[in-house]
Amino acid sequence: MFPMKDLCSDKVLGLYFSDGKRRVDYVLTYHIQKSGSTRRHKRSSRAPLQPKEDPEVAAQEHQTDYHEDDKRFKRDEFEENLQKTGLELEKDEGSTIPGVGFLKIHAPWNVLCREAEFMKLKMPTKKVYEVKQGSSVVEKIRMFIHKVTAPLHPKVDTSRAQCQKPLSHPFSREKQHLEWMDGWMDINNIYIFVACDIFIESCFCSQLLYEQWASYSVFYKYQPIGLIRKYFGEKIGLYFAWLGVYTQMLIPAAIIGVIVFLYGCATVDDNIPSMEICDPRNNITMCPLCDQACSYWKLVTACGTARASHLFDNAATVFFSVFMALWAVLFMEHWKRRQMRLNYVWDLTGFGEEEEVLMPSIVCVCVCVCVCVCVCVCVCDEKVKLTCTDRLPAYLTTVVMMGFMIIVTFVIVFGVILYRISIRAALHMSSHPVVRYNIRATVKTTAAIINLIIIIILDEIYGAIARWLTRLEVPKTDKSFEERLIFKTFILKFVNAFTPIVYLAFFRGRLVGRPGNYLYVVGSYRMEECAHAGCLMELCIQLCITMLGKQLIQNNLFEIGLPKLKKMLRRRKSEMVSIQEPVPHKTLKRYEKDQLLGPFVGLNPEYMEMIIQFGMVTLFVASFPLAPLFALLNNIIEIRLDAKKFVTELRRPIAAKAKDIGIWYNLLRGLSKVAVIVNAFVIAFTSDFIPRLVYQYMYSPDGTLHGFVNHTLSYFNVTDFDPGTEPLQPMHLGYKVSVCRYKDYRDPPWSSTKYELSKEFWAILAARLAFVIVFQNVVMLMSDFVDWLIPDIPKDISLQIHKEKILMVELFMKEEQGKRFAARDNQDNCTVPLSANQRPPQPRSRPVSQANCS
Amino acid sequence: MFPMKDLCSDKVLGLYFSDGKRRVDYVLTYHIQKSGSTRRHKRSSRAPLQPKEDPEVAAQEHQTDYHEDDKRFKRDEFEENLQKTGLELEKDEGSTIPGVGFLKIHAPWNVLCREAEFMKLKMPTKKVYEVKQGSSVVEKIRMFIHKVTAPLHPKVDTSRAQCQKPLSHPFSREKQHLEWMDGWMDINNIYIFVACDIFIESCFCSQLLYEQWASYSVFYKYQPIGLIRKYFGEKIGLYFAWLGVYTQMLIPAAIIGVIVFLYGCATVDDNIPSMEICDPRNNITMCPLCDQACSYWKLVTACGTARASHLFDNAATVFFSVFMALWAVLFMEHWKRRQMRLNYVWDLTGFGEEEEVLMPSIVCVCVCVCVCVCVCVCVCDEKVKLTCTDRLPAYLTTVVMMGFMIIVTFVIVFGVILYRISIRAALHMSSHPVVRYNIRATVKTTAAIINLIIIIILDEIYGAIARWLTRLEVPKTDKSFEERLIFKTFILKFVNAFTPIVYLAFFRGRLVGRPGNYLYVVGSYRMEECAHAGCLMELCIQLCITMLGKQLIQNNLFEIGLPKLKKMLRRRKSEMVSIQEPVPHKTLKRYEKDQLLGPFVGLNPEYMEMIIQFGMVTLFVASFPLAPLFALLNNIIEIRLDAKKFVTELRRPIAAKAKDIGIWYNLLRGLSKVAVIVNAFVIAFTSDFIPRLVYQYMYSPDGTLHGFVNHTLSYFNVTDFDPGTEPLQPMHLGYKVSVCRYKDYRDPPWSSTKYELSKEFWAILAARLAFVIVFQNVVMLMSDFVDWLIPDIPKDISLQIHKEKILMVELFMKEEQGKRFAARDNQDNCTVPLSANQRPPQPRSRPVSQANCS
Repeated sequence: MFPMKDLCSDKVLGLYFSDGKRRVDYVLTYHIQKSGSTRRHKRSSRAPLQPKEDPEVAAQEHQTDYHEDDKRFKRDEFEENLQKTGLELEKDEGSTIPGVGFLKIHAPWNVLCREAEFMKLKMPTKKVYEVKQGSSVVEKIRMFIHKVTAPLHPKVDTSRAQCQKPLSHPFSREKQHLEWMDGWMDINNIYIFVACDIFIESCFCSQLLYEQWASYSVFYKYQPIGLIRKYFGEKIGLYFAWLGVYTQMLIPAAIIGVIVFLYGCATVDDNIPSMEICDPRNNITMCPLCDQACSYWKLVTACGTARASHLFDNAATVFFSVFMALWAVLFMEHWKRRQMRLNYVWDLTGFGEEEEVLMPSIVCVCVCVCVCVCVCVCVCDEKVKLTCTDRLPAYLTTVVMMGFMIIVTFVIVFGVILYRISIRAALHMSSHPVVRYNIRATVKTTAAIINLIIIIILDEIYGAIARWLTRLEVPKTDKSFEERLIFKTFILKFVNAFTPIVYLAFFRGRLVGRPGNYLYVVGSYRMEECAHAGCLMELCIQLCITMLGKQLIQNNLFEIGLPKLKKMLRRRKSEMVSIQEPVPHKTLKRYEKDQLLGPFVGLNPEYMEMIIQFGMVTLFVASFPLAPLFALLNNIIEIRLDAKKFVTELRRPIAAKAKDIGIWYNLLRGLSKVAVIVNAFVIAFTSDFIPRLVYQYMYSPDGTLHGFVNHTLSYFNVTDFDPGTEPLQPMHLGYKVSVCRYKDYRDPPWSSTKYELSKEFWAILAARLAFVIVFQNVVMLMSDFVDWLIPDIPKDISLQIHKEKILMVELFMKEEQGKRFAARDNQDNCTVPLSANQRPPQPRSRPVSQANCS
Repeated sequence: MFPMKDLCSDKVLGLYFSDGKRRVDYVLTYHIQKSGSTRRHKRSSRAPLQPKEDPEVAAQEHQTDYHEDDKRFKRDEFEENLQKTGLELEKDEGSTIPGVGFLKIHAPWNVLCREAEFMKLKMPTKKVYEVKQGSSVVEKIRMFIHKVTAPLHPKVDTSRAQCQKPLSHPFSREKQHLEWMDGWMDINNIYIFVACDIFIESCFCSQLLYEQWASYSVFYKYQPIGLIRKYFGEKIGLYFAWLGVYTQMLIPAAIIGVIVFLYGCATVDDNIPSMEICDPRNNITMCPLCDQACSYWKLVTACGTARASHLFDNAATVFFSVFMALWAVLFMEHWKRRQMRLNYVWDLTGFGEEEEVLMPSIVCVCVCVCVCVCVCVCVCDEKVKLTCTDRLPAYLTTVVMMGFMIIVTFVIVFGVILYRISIRAALHMSSHPVVRYNIRATVKTTAAIINLIIIIILDEIYGAIARWLTRLEVPKTDKSFEERLIFKTFILKFVNAFTPIVYLAFFRGRLVGRPGNYLYVVGSYRMEECAHAGCLMELCIQLCITMLGKQLIQNNLFEIGLPKLKKMLRRRKSEMVSIQEPVPHKTLKRYEKDQLLGPFVGLNPEYMEMIIQFGMVTLFVASFPLAPLFALLNNIIEIRLDAKKFVTELRRPIAAKAKDIGIWYNLLRGLSKVAVIVNAFVIAFTSDFIPRLVYQYMYSPDGTLHGFVNHTLSYFNVTDFDPGTEPLQPMHLGYKVSVCRYKDYRDPPWSSTKYELSKEFWAILAARLAFVIVFQNVVMLMSDFVDWLIPDIPKDISLQIHKEKILMVELFMKEEQGKRFAARDNQDNCTVPLSANQRPPQPRSRPVSQANCS
């Protein structure tokens, strides 16, 4: 089922019923079995316990193999029900696309009115009031900003909406005194509501959208949200509004991130620890990085890494983490306010949850029954009620499969670790000097790329598994299906994307053991150490490659390439079917052309992609201040890419009303909460921020960082190596080593408690933990404070709502007095309640030329 | 202004207007200046910028000293406005109470209908549907529980409400097809809504309330919440419902708390640390507790304290903290569900925020203008708009005063500390052995009592100051006034109640220094140490005394004593005024009697008291597991006390509609969040839980706590005492002391780093901090999980709401079809919209005898 696509030319076929007057609002398609035609896509019969399939699958599978008679009977029954509700139908089974029947639906004016009244749909009345925008100073500033940003606004006529607004009231045919506004406005509203199409202006809308929205040349402009909502409905409008707000909020984050990065670049030469590492006079001999194959090495060779680490591990990083935690809260607040504003402008303020439950009654029944008519009817008829026992196996499968998938992810990450360990040892054996010099960089980069590829492949697999598992569970309602699917997909994709990162941030280099007592896994693999300046650098590389690669590959390959390919295949297929009687593409009726477009599979994949990105931006921002910049660049493209897809590549989605972005808001909130604690741990444990601070204030003789590098290195007596682990080439550096150094806080060999964790270790650990507590609670407190400080409803909106209410009181009182007068003059009163009922559908006959979209 | 009180006897004077038919719904009182009568309570004129006074003050001050003419003119204008809205008035200035005029108000049926329609008040229709309560098994369990708890239910007839419920719909005189239910039900609703009174049943209600609610003999029963709501309105109903839920939830908490305490009692003899302390063979000599006056002492003398400490500081305490954190979340969830259920039963589900803003229009104007008619009119007339500059001084005053008050609290707490230090030194000097033996107990108890008295006194002062500050700020609306007042009062009272407790929990004994290098304050006061087993014991005593004392004194003195005293004074006063013409109390008209009762001052003090108690129960529950028990006992009394007060002592409050408990919910939520982190710190830092754990797993030679006491004590060489601080009686114990012990983790005198913090100190600190992080995050995660797991709307309620909606759909469709038929037969349709309008107020004439309250 899909609403009709738009068209500006009147010459296009198939816009009207055969009487040439009634327009086609909706088209249902079904598979018809022509005797003689081959049944290509025959599918095995499914269990009757499957009332609902996910949209993608369902939309592609219009064919089931129930008996044709049975199908036809059920279809007839369904059509009868549609007609009972007052809809008008027309069939087209002699279509030029063989094997597909079309059922055209027209919704008459009366039906629309009835639905609007029943759903208490807020409709604009003729009563208009001035929208005051606060005091004159505020107003002036607003005007100024508006003027300055004028080039950024899309060229869509919105002048009227800015200065005055029609008073809205739940539609009622009885309330004549409210004088409902004539013309497109109300039709449009009702149409959108009962999920129908407006041909009159939609052609115009579509053209505008294509020019002002779905084009890369307008990437710097705001989106025409009002228009998007008008054409695609509130749900999709909200998605793009949210994406716009998110992208807009990324701008300051990206700027600050770049500044923080530049600060790192600027101060890299003043950084005492890296100076000390790079100073060849500090002749520090380090213990070997792997058993036997590796030998002692000089700290000065880690100079490059140390300098690079400083770029991402400096005092500004801590500030940036705090900033980003608050940024996340601000973003949520800003979105709440924007959502409230949209709710007000779109007259959704009264549209509560109660209505939400009611709303889908007709629409939902339509969609559900049409798309998978047989399965659905089957379940409804038999009144199959699943008990807990019936559901148990499905739930168990879900739990087991989810656990298994998560373990698979862990195992793969562990495999990559083993790859890293073994490749490093192998490279160390190599005699080629270039290879030996670039060991670290090679290992890090190849591992990160392998991780990336695995992530992308698993992402697709996990998406399919989540859908399969949710279908197994047979959720009762659409909403429940969606929520379960989102929940599962989110967990799997999140674990998949973040496991390697979490390993790098928190486990790498902690489970190493110490020289003479290393930790071994899987036989003889010694766990890897971090570079001297902490693991932050590797975390950063991993994040960078994951973010860039994921976005580039997923955007280009999956969002542009695949749909194109699918569309091509679909056209090829239909051409092959109709090869006997080739039809030129131009003479296809409009709905036949739409049938060839890709189906709309819901907004969830779009949201999911953005949520994972939001996670990358906020969760590990302490280690990678450029993340917001990458996200920003991606999103600027993403918006226009999605726009193009929605306008040109997909069948027009069924418009759905929505007040908010639903479960996604909660996921975002959860992520920004988790981000606080994750960032606290990254700063405290992954970066060297706390050890530097502790050294400076507790141990440094002169209050500077001079001597910090020496302080972080413990001593090891080479005679204490376990037999068989000492380096094969002890004279590699050209002299005999008796004591080597390693990065840890342990007592020296000459202490009575040799190689035990030293007092400094415990002091620094306490400092790290104290930092986590302070950071977490301070940021949480600040977030709550910001949350409390910013009102959820913008002040001007709440003023306007108040004003609207006062106007409604006045109207009500006036009517009340009017009634008293009318009561004396009984004659007049008699005709009022009926006139609305019998009102001719006059606005619908307006000519196309008069329509506008503002 | 107050609604009329109830009465069962028809003989009571003053229930009707002088025509004997129209009932008195509301009574306004005002001061009239009779020539010759003395002006007793003359008050100085107030600044005109004071539009709103807080209820208590306002209610008591009916007299202003504007010129009598001016007042009369404004009163006339006000009365005219009331009449314009359709209300009917009657004056009684020749009352038996001299100096007070009464304006009786009657709200006719038409006005009530109009208001109900305008406010979209949900009203029950004649359509009744069966309330199904889930599957048969669930239903059986429910029935069983209901039977078992039958004696606990108040004897109020609620049978009908249980099995079926009338379908509700926003009232509209036009919607005849809905057949509004006749009789008391709708009158009652409208009445409650427009804040009027129902005599017909209220006398019955009142009698029932008195018997089934406001009596100590029914303390074990549920409260008749429906009845309370019917008589006092939703707002007060919600308060008592909340108090009931809170008290009910305290029962499991109290039981677990007692079990934890009993566990402590049972294991006190097996507790190795206290055994070691009490064992005289461990001959440990401790360093003196104060300079000069105190001498060395034996650890064995602290045996009693150590054993007592174990009662509150054992492994069960940690469990109890976690339990109470979850308990708080469960309580919030339970309340949310209960609130939702009440909203459903009370037909408030559609009553959104929008209506809330509209609702007070009439009521608020009434209240506002009547209570402080002159001030209000003055501001409204002159349209004084306060700019930021006008408000700045008030805000500055607020900030400065709040800061000052908080500092005062701190200073007073510090004063108590100094008292404690000096009294201890003084007692140590005493030669009486009994005195010396009981030093600790004496000091602790007297200090706690002093703290308690100060808290109670400051509480009253701070309440007055908060009111004064809020009045200075001139908030725009009632709601804003209330919120600001609550905010200020909360902060001040909270700081006041918790400063001594926080000091004891987190600062006491930490800022001591060490022997030879003690910390001194205010010259020569050495900071106090904790007893050997931690400060938990003292914290516990303080909490116990504060909770018990506060509740006993505030309940008895302020809630019972003071109102009685005030009432007596008021009666005495009025008798003195009317001494010339003494009137027997019995011949007073009903509203004259009511005038003598105390005014209703709002629910805020009641809520505030409970919130502080909730803070005591949750914040420091780790140190005092009996807190929930004390709170439970207090609340059982509190409910009946408040009930008695509301039914007999106060003028009947104006009924107000409310959907939730407003700001108090947020405060509770905030408290339960803070409670998690506070408890984490109490367990980690105040109790010895973590040191014991660390000792057991890191240092103990045999994995038990043997040797723990020795481990916690550092060594001090007495020759290192600062000159002048060594004890005056070094031979007090009978032998020469060369090395004494003190409780801290420091290196011994023979170490190279003598008296520095030892490695154990840092290790234990790290463990403590790690515990805080783990505890906080685990409990927060569990809370969020519980929050997510329990749906906010009970399942049966959401089912019923759904059912109601489907029924509404059916009704609507039926009406829709009916209309079509009617349209053909135009005659019928004509009379429909008017009949409701002209319907006689027939239900109001029902005789008293038929009324019932169920």
